Amino acid sequence: MRLKCVKGAKEIVESSPYLILEPEKYKSKYNKIFNNNNPIHIEIGMGKGKFIIENALNNPDINFIGIEKYDSVIVRAVQKLQDLDIPNLKLIRMDAEKIEDVFSKDIDLIYLNFSDPWPKTRHERRRLSSHEFLKRYDSIFKDRKHIIQKTDNRKLFEFSIMSYTSYGYNIENISLDLHNDDIKDNITTEYEDKFVSLGQPIYMIDVTK
Amino acid sequence: MRLKCVKGAKEIVESSPYLILEPEKYKSKYNKIFNNNNPIHIEIGMGKGKFIIENALNNPDINFIGIEKYDSVIVRAVQKLQDLDIPNLKLIRMDAEKIEDVFSKDIDLIYLNFSDPWPKTRHERRRLSSHEFLKRYDSIFKDRKHIIQKTDNRKLFEFSIMSYTSYGYNIENISLDLHNDDIKDNITTEYEDKFVSLGQPIYMIDVTK
Repeated sequence: MRLKCVKGAKEIVESSPYLILEPEKYKSKYNKIFNNNNPIHIEIGMGKGKFIIENALNNPDINFIGIEKYDSVIVRAVQKLQDLDIPNLKLIRMDAEKIEDVFSKDIDLIYLNFSDPWPKTRHERRRLSSHEFLKRYDSIFKDRKHIIQKTDNRKLFEFSIMSYTSYGYNIENISLDLHNDDIKDNITTEYEDKFVSLGQPIYMIDVTK
Repeated sequence: MRLKCVKGAKEIVESSPYLILEPEKYKSKYNKIFNNNNPIHIEIGMGKGKFIIENALNNPDINFIGIEKYDSVIVRAVQKLQDLDIPNLKLIRMDAEKIEDVFSKDIDLIYLNFSDPWPKTRHERRRLSSHEFLKRYDSIFKDRKHIIQKTDNRKLFEFSIMSYTSYGYNIENISLDLHNDDIKDNITTEYEDKFVSLGQPIYMIDVTK
């Protein structure tokens, strides 16, 4: 996600109490950050943060960590959080390729929302649902592997279905038009609201291994 | 598929040289009907026959068998075939539930086109992609199991993806909007043409085991 530059974004982000500045130090012991042993759900590519902030507010017994690469994006979430005290939410600024440096058997669930589709075949391995990423995720899950993905991008979704199942994941649930299903508790992202308002279908897949 | 009654449909169907009247007799030896050992592809629920007739005409080195339950439907295919001589095409009038009585290690590929979605959960086992049917198909495949399904019904398609993968099938190819993909050689059914003209997406999945 590219946004117009917020002046001093880096400083704003780094001074936020939500940001974990040196996440490598907490590898295998994120329960110490949250002071409890509740499950930990992460969102890789949290964007402006609406999804993970609402999730954290609605589910106080789950710990949430939002991951985002760019200061210019994460700063939007930090600004939203300025007057909020949400003890079960943290943010990490990092490239998802380094995720194994930061987590080891810490995670219960990964959310992938409206990830970059990387449409060119030669960029396939950069897609967050590629086998390259699924391999990285293997070591960060506590026990059962669990990924929930939403996207409006048909090609990315077709690719993801094939990638998960050929990697040995089982499909627990799938929707090819999430907002026309009888769903409850679907927390939307900023992108999702925009696409739904345009009448485009949202694809969702829930897989475990 | 329900159609207006064609008078004398049963007699017209039974007098067609394309119809295999007692298919049980050819179990494990359909090569004798076709006088060759070419692969055999079947379409379960062939409807009015456009798909399988075009397929047989375009692929003389593959044998095709169309299966349909109702005289009132199969008669439309028989009428289309009246002035055509297609040696690699046969028809069977039967209920797909009995498919194991008719085939044993005969089949290379099953086509399921626009099958009845049986939307009620209590009718789930009647869907042609249910585990009940996948079990029946197991013994009719020669070696590798191979199914290609097309449908416009979203709920049936979601169900089918989950059914195939949880039964151990691998997804070779999938499209959530077949007619907006760069496909060649897609032979359409009568239903498909109608749905495409209405702008509805056609779903396709190609699975093997």
